[in-house]
Amino acid sequence: MEKQDQLLMKKQNKNLVLEIIRNQSPISRMEIAKVIGMSPTSITRIVNELHIQGYVRETELVTSGVGRKAALLDVCDDVLYTIGIELDKLIIKIGIVNYVGEIVAWKSVEREAFEDYNETLDKVNLNLKVLIDINRIPTEKIIGIAVGLPGLIDYKKGVVMVSDQLKWKNVNLADDLKQLTQFDVIVDNELKMKIVAENFKGMTKDSRNAVLVGIGSGIGSAIILNGEIYRGETNNAGEIGHTVIDPTGNVCHCGKVGCLATYISEGAILTDSRKVKEIGSIDDVFDSYRNGESWAINILDRTSTYIALAISNILCLYNPEVIILSGNTIEKLPEIKEAIEQKCELYIWEPIKESVKIVYSQLSDRGVVLGAAIQAQNLLLNIE
Amino acid sequence: MEKQDQLLMKKQNKNLVLEIIRNQSPISRMEIAKVIGMSPTSITRIVNELHIQGYVRETELVTSGVGRKAALLDVCDDVLYTIGIELDKLIIKIGIVNYVGEIVAWKSVEREAFEDYNETLDKVNLNLKVLIDINRIPTEKIIGIAVGLPGLIDYKKGVVMVSDQLKWKNVNLADDLKQLTQFDVIVDNELKMKIVAENFKGMTKDSRNAVLVGIGSGIGSAIILNGEIYRGETNNAGEIGHTVIDPTGNVCHCGKVGCLATYISEGAILTDSRKVKEIGSIDDVFDSYRNGESWAINILDRTSTYIALAISNILCLYNPEVIILSGNTIEKLPEIKEAIEQKCELYIWEPIKESVKIVYSQLSDRGVVLGAAIQAQNLLLNIE
Repeated sequence: MEKQDQLLMKKQNKNLVLEIIRNQSPISRMEIAKVIGMSPTSITRIVNELHIQGYVRETELVTSGVGRKAALLDVCDDVLYTIGIELDKLIIKIGIVNYVGEIVAWKSVEREAFEDYNETLDKVNLNLKVLIDINRIPTEKIIGIAVGLPGLIDYKKGVVMVSDQLKWKNVNLADDLKQLTQFDVIVDNELKMKIVAENFKGMTKDSRNAVLVGIGSGIGSAIILNGEIYRGETNNAGEIGHTVIDPTGNVCHCGKVGCLATYISEGAILTDSRKVKEIGSIDDVFDSYRNGESWAINILDRTSTYIALAISNILCLYNPEVIILSGNTIEKLPEIKEAIEQKCELYIWEPIKESVKIVYSQLSDRGVVLGAAIQAQNLLLNIE
Repeated sequence: MEKQDQLLMKKQNKNLVLEIIRNQSPISRMEIAKVIGMSPTSITRIVNELHIQGYVRETELVTSGVGRKAALLDVCDDVLYTIGIELDKLIIKIGIVNYVGEIVAWKSVEREAFEDYNETLDKVNLNLKVLIDINRIPTEKIIGIAVGLPGLIDYKKGVVMVSDQLKWKNVNLADDLKQLTQFDVIVDNELKMKIVAENFKGMTKDSRNAVLVGIGSGIGSAIILNGEIYRGETNNAGEIGHTVIDPTGNVCHCGKVGCLATYISEGAILTDSRKVKEIGSIDDVFDSYRNGESWAINILDRTSTYIALAISNILCLYNPEVIILSGNTIEKLPEIKEAIEQKCELYIWEPIKESVKIVYSQLSDRGVVLGAAIQAQNLLLNIE
């Protein structure tokens, strides 16, 4: 084997070992060797290097019955940091996350509905700098930023192609934010960031086949297939909101008839509610539901029916291990969970009913920020 | 690096180089080096070994403008063979396929609708032996068999869990056929085998994200994601036939309401046709359609509508590069293609319309056999 190949491979193996320790800690050298299929001697050499560089440490000694005790390994939480940012219509959230995925600093700032692009970026930059200073995070330990936002994203270029919520179109967010902050910047759709968090320490931890469904003002899904984010050919995979679920049903703003979103999005629920009663916001609809007003019960009963049908269809196509429901509607109206579950019992195709777990996101409003920061680690960390 | 790791890696690299030459031939050593990211010297050493072992050969010399001419590499077509078998209700197809994916021997045999499991296996074994003898295929060059059939398959164990068409339940086809033939045997769903053929030399050649939809007596799909067959958690991914497309529609034998299959499967078309006219087989319905009988036009118009809606939903969820339509209905009634395309024009969600190609399988009745044989190469060939 050539020298250059060996060097490349050594680097790859080293990064792989570090990733395994981060994701599966506490873990022994022997277990790592088994997972990768390399010799214990090679693993020991690599771990020594990682130890000297400050990435890993020994935590405790365990015994496996015979022979001397084995030390378990963990990564050092403060060896590096990443910044996770969530941008939405009316709010900006910023978190500084350490190497074990803990949010060590947090700030949320209001955003105006029609705020200018550069104004939002300045706001992000200013608040980020303050957050770093106050928490005395050494700048040289910050390896980069990742931003999650609603919209169609060219994640390779870091370009927001269109975001209805932010009113942005064709802006190179990655380049512009890098210029302001001097950090490397990754940009992706918010649901893709969220499922990274769920997969790292949430409800789908270590699952190789998982789908996250977002039910709120927008309807979408993000998918982990064979352990990786699945994007499809143009990063549009998972656009469940525009699957047709009733070809003789509601007209959708996309020009089709019967799209799922026209039955379960906040906008759809509001439009229908306003046919009955003067309603200010979606919270009023949820209140009316809780008060037992029959019109609200009717509308949200239909919503839960279509959510269950969507779950059923997702399971038929992706056959995931876990499906995780998240978003405003689920969080603000937890009462709807029972209705969804009862209908899933009816609608899910028998041969796959047993194999899937239906769960709810527990990361609440911090999921996107955390996932973005983890994704920044995944993509930007490449040690020598 | 340890000795054992190096040996394993050398073997992996060698198999990888051979796979690249098979899939991308004619290809130069330099191009292989680029694809894998290894040094040209390493590639040259590996290619020399493969050449001595009889797997690869040089084909022609090409010049890239400057310097000496580079030799292009190809695999040797007769270095090995695999057997592809398709089992269906009324037919058994057997093909012997060489290393470049050519069917060098072919035989199809009738099967009785209620033929006993062992009788079918004996028939397969007998006809296979005759086929090998007549065509003088050296047995030692045959590395294994792969079987494609309709049904739910545990492909890891080679077990047919249930096949309605063959009337089989929980039979270990791989073990039983291995015992009869002495060859290693792989078993998988027919559509999964078919998409392997399409991806190797058919309409989705080299596509990393492709979906094959089968429209005939059964309705299903097979999926290539990130270059590999996607199976989901219990090998049920792609069960498009039981996605709900009209929640107030037809009752399905699975117990749900509005499954896609109840609008587009041969059985569904026949059931509806018999409400109008005494009909023998699906061919009679297609003839009536061609004769301009309005009832047949009405029924098949609805069929094409639901096929287009299914395509639209598949595109939203998987966002593939190519979608390939296959199966009896498409093959026997090519007139339906135009109707499907017109409706796709209406129903496909705008942001993905441009990025996808809708094509038709050209492998006709040999797709499953060819794909099975290619899959046998993919899974059973592991040279030292």
